[in-house]
Amino acid sequence: MMTKYAVRTDLAVESKEKFEKDQVEIEGVVIHETYDRQRDIRTTVVSVESEKGARIMEKPRGHYITIEAPGLTQTEQSYHQEIAGELANHLQKIMGLDQRKRILVAGLGNMDITPDALGPAVVRHLVVNRHVIREYGADESGNSRVHEISTIIPGVMARTGMETLEILRGVVQETKPDMVVAVDALAARSTRRLNCTIQITDTGINPGSGVMNHRNRINRESLGVPVIAIGVPTVVDAATIVHDAVEHLLEALDEAEIEEFLAELIAPGLSSMFVTPKDVDETLKQLSMTISQGLNLAFSCV
Amino acid sequence: MMTKYAVRTDLAVESKEKFEKDQVEIEGVVIHETYDRQRDIRTTVVSVESEKGARIMEKPRGHYITIEAPGLTQTEQSYHQEIAGELANHLQKIMGLDQRKRILVAGLGNMDITPDALGPAVVRHLVVNRHVIREYGADESGNSRVHEISTIIPGVMARTGMETLEILRGVVQETKPDMVVAVDALAARSTRRLNCTIQITDTGINPGSGVMNHRNRINRESLGVPVIAIGVPTVVDAATIVHDAVEHLLEALDEAEIEEFLAELIAPGLSSMFVTPKDVDETLKQLSMTISQGLNLAFSCV
Amino acid sequence: MMTKYAVRTDLAVESKEKFEKDQVEIEGVVIHETYDRQRDIRTTVVSVESEKGARIMEKPRGHYITIEAPGLTQTEQSYHQEIAGELANHLQKIMGLDQRKRILVAGLGNMDITPDALGPAVVRHLVVNRHVIREYGADESGNSRVHEISTIIPGVMARTGMETLEILRGVVQETKPDMVVAVDALAARSTRRLNCTIQITDTGINPGSGVMNHRNRINRESLGVPVIAIGVPTVVDAATIVHDAVEHLLEALDEAEIEEFLAELIAPGLSSMFVTPKDVDETLKQLSMTISQGLNLAFSCV
Amino acid sequence: MMTKYAVRTDLAVESKEKFEKDQVEIEGVVIHETYDRQRDIRTTVVSVESEKGARIMEKPRGHYITIEAPGLTQTEQSYHQEIAGELANHLQKIMGLDQRKRILVAGLGNMDITPDALGPAVVRHLVVNRHVIREYGADESGNSRVHEISTIIPGVMARTGMETLEILRGVVQETKPDMVVAVDALAARSTRRLNCTIQITDTGINPGSGVMNHRNRINRESLGVPVIAIGVPTVVDAATIVHDAVEHLLEALDEAEIEEFLAELIAPGLSSMFVTPKDVDETLKQLSMTISQGLNLAFSCV
Repeated sequence: MMTKYAVRTDLAVESKEKFEKDQVEIEGVVIHETYDRQRDIRTTVVSVESEKGARIMEKPRGHYITIEAPGLTQTEQSYHQEIAGELANHLQKIMGLDQRKRILVAGLGNMDITPDALGPAVVRHLVVNRHVIREYGADESGNSRVHEISTIIPGVMARTGMETLEILRGVVQETKPDMVVAVDALAARSTRRLNCTIQITDTGINPGSGVMNHRNRINRESLGVPVIAIGVPTVVDAATIVHDAVEHLLEALDEAEIEEFLAELIAPGLSSMFVTPKDVDETLKQLSMTISQGLNLAFSCV
Repeated sequence: MMTKYAVRTDLAVESKEKFEKDQVEIEGVVIHETYDRQRDIRTTVVSVESEKGARIMEKPRGHYITIEAPGLTQTEQSYHQEIAGELANHLQKIMGLDQRKRILVAGLGNMDITPDALGPAVVRHLVVNRHVIREYGADESGNSRVHEISTIIPGVMARTGMETLEILRGVVQETKPDMVVAVDALAARSTRRLNCTIQITDTGINPGSGVMNHRNRINRESLGVPVIAIGVPTVVDAATIVHDAVEHLLEALDEAEIEEFLAELIAPGLSSMFVTPKDVDETLKQLSMTISQGLNLAFSCV
Repeated sequence: MMTKYAVRTDLAVESKEKFEKDQVEIEGVVIHETYDRQRDIRTTVVSVESEKGARIMEKPRGHYITIEAPGLTQTEQSYHQEIAGELANHLQKIMGLDQRKRILVAGLGNMDITPDALGPAVVRHLVVNRHVIREYGADESGNSRVHEISTIIPGVMARTGMETLEILRGVVQETKPDMVVAVDALAARSTRRLNCTIQITDTGINPGSGVMNHRNRINRESLGVPVIAIGVPTVVDAATIVHDAVEHLLEALDEAEIEEFLAELIAPGLSSMFVTPKDVDETLKQLSMTISQGLNLAFSCV
Repeated sequence: MMTKYAVRTDLAVESKEKFEKDQVEIEGVVIHETYDRQRDIRTTVVSVESEKGARIMEKPRGHYITIEAPGLTQTEQSYHQEIAGELANHLQKIMGLDQRKRILVAGLGNMDITPDALGPAVVRHLVVNRHVIREYGADESGNSRVHEISTIIPGVMARTGMETLEILRGVVQETKPDMVVAVDALAARSTRRLNCTIQITDTGINPGSGVMNHRNRINRESLGVPVIAIGVPTVVDAATIVHDAVEHLLEALDEAEIEEFLAELIAPGLSSMFVTPKDVDETLKQLSMTISQGLNLAFSCV
């Protein structure tokens, strides 16, 4: 339904909701949800276990952990630290960090466009030690119980002329990490989730577009090593806002009428517009620190 | 109609359009429009001449010059230079720059929020000479035929704890300029006008809010000297997008139903959201240079 | 001695040292020094009590508190917090913060030149409440036991065309604070003190130049309210480096020879050069946070 | 002589001067100098032709073109454009741009430390087209007569944990450019050359250190394709300033005394200090635009 104007979301938890609304159970998709009332943190694990489930969800097979924490848009520091701890716990499990690992963290996105700069901002605050370990050894440097961390900010294709995948593939082949972590800003369907939701997945990531362009997906298949993606929705497409607002209203219309309506009203101006909160600069500065802390914590001991 | 959810616009040219659509002629409002087809520049002068006109337009009495130039969102440098020249011409007339003037230019807005940083960005590229003229005299410094320029970036109230009006009033009383030029980012109603429309007015400006808060309006009455405001719409309220998209659709409903619809759908998430183009950072960097050039040109000789 | 090429320092503690080296006691200057060995913090209070002392020290009469803490150039967070506490203690005493005060904090300097951006950077992290108290009252806002804080970043004369003093005088007259705190970057004589020394004084400050230009000094006399200046040395003039390095070497020469040497070697290239550590961007980011914390702490209760 | 405290320079033209002063002719080094009096541009080509010459010059065999243009520190735009043209001419020759080439431009250095940010700043203004040509073909895209350009900002080892060479080697192997251009900030010996000298060489570059660390040199040998390096001196080591200032003075002393002097005075404070002009932020912003223009010009047609 409404395939042509399908609203975009990078969040598995939002794909899931679409079907819940229709009270459909999705074959091959297992959902596990917990809610920490005291801290107002909702954690949802969506496991897409079959190809059929993947087609319905429009998401590759694998695990999607979503941490929803409305307090993340506030400045309360102790709350941010708890979320960093929560993030670290999930990463240690999904990445198997009980074994010492060499990890390359890639900060995707355009650092000159505020809501797209999450990845680079996270990477800039990470503790990096690969060069020290390789110069002095893990033992001599007192680092024998930590993971070996390197980072890269590859930039976006419009600036580099190269696919993000090409750059990462070259760096992976040259420096041989055991795993890649890719951090990127995402698009959500609902403004309610902006800047207060963290998604962790072992299915990799499509840089930039959000278009289902499988060719350049950054994942185990394309890079040769496992890829964990960490994403935060920072924008909603402007067209999505309109779509969702009128959805109920449109129920009376048939599909042709709906398409006509959408084509006429949404198409011209909104295609390159996005919706974002007024304080996005400040919010993302803080949130990127929180995610950096989570990563530093996860990587700090085996 | 729809007063409770009246969409906000800082552009007189958009207030005007609202009435044209209803084919209403507005008493006390004179409109003069020219279109330069070759360069695709539309210039509209709206003169609000009576209190009645002001009430209807929801804009103070005075003149509103709007330059609409879609090419401003592109990078073509020669086009930007032409717009700078156009802007300079209008300023020389409305400011009476055939007489030597002492001018204080104020860059309003929050320089840390991209779409709100237009004012500070413009001011940073202005040629300033008040201190030179006061040290060496206008003649000795070879500046006898130029205006005396000073600038200030007052910051926003949430950061300073002071009304922008208080800061400007203090600086005006201490440094005695003949006029104030205030540059600020505006809110538009239509995404079509974002970052490619310049409004010049002699009615002053309300910093920040866009709320009709007359108490702190920066104008001749509050500052004691004439105030020219230069504004560029850089955002559209997210709620406005939805409102405009569904307007036609809503025509079948009665007012109560419409209000219910809007209250239900728009209110919760969208109030603090705005819509802005994906490349707003780059576009505003360039546009602020263009406006700076226009001001520098206008101020460069008597 | 060597008056023509007198090296510049904004630090009273360095003026003092010059005389100690010559084992001269300075009439009208009282010095009190304490050293906290455990935390490696040296605190020196220089009181210039007579006009004669002021002439010799080349510093106005008043009190100069210097906190020297080498650890400030490191990233150890708990250490930075202790220094913030130390700074808050000194401020509470010298500002008389046991009485509720209305305080305007001014961040002097050029935010686009890294080592000059300390003042603006400090001010950006302050908790500001004047606008809230004036809107809701101190009691209603739960703020009855805090000071009323406003801030301004006036910019530098080359950018504004106005003396910093003019801007502050206008804002003070309009908003009537009880005191002004001015934060600025300073020049030191020794690279050893860069970015790890904080000077607090009740004698005000000369923006920018460091030249003894009394006309535009920001102090109680020129502003009409007490002025506390907080400064951190972030640069050493390049000529000073050379001077200090060769000082011992020059002892064999007579004054004419020395002047010839200095005139020949230092003059041409170095006059517009300064010396600064390679990591000045990072160091100042952190240090400005520490000073902000100190101010926020000092202002947070009566 | 003075080997232990040998002052560092990345400029071949300064290595050359050292020997001219001693009126020594250097075997295996050919020098060609031209001076454009009208525009005050001095161009020096130093060709290091033998291993012996390389040892004496402490620079690898190859060609070093130096453009010295004092006007570059000024804001005169037409002058900057002429230098961009000059740079383009030299690049077209040394890179063989009469044949269509695939070129990867790497912006080396730390974008968060102003005088080290030249490389990243240059790369951000380049016109990039590799992705367009690969998607649409050179002919379809109307690009058949232009070179294929991609860019990367690899970051510094302290941030990435990887040698710059490792990152570039990976990207080169994956994307197969015909040549690499590396842009970086350099250290000079004299403040006179800061920010107004451009060195082009076909010998590659040592990222960061300036130490003669041949292992990680980025050149044809290590990358497998020709490497052209473009550098601008933006800092002088603080110790160098002192050394040069006292050089004449030291002539009377013997080598042991000199070493003692230098060890005592320079060592402690200055090792991590550099000298840079007060307006380095503004100057480098402009200079990086000029070099970008030169590169864009050189790459714009075959």
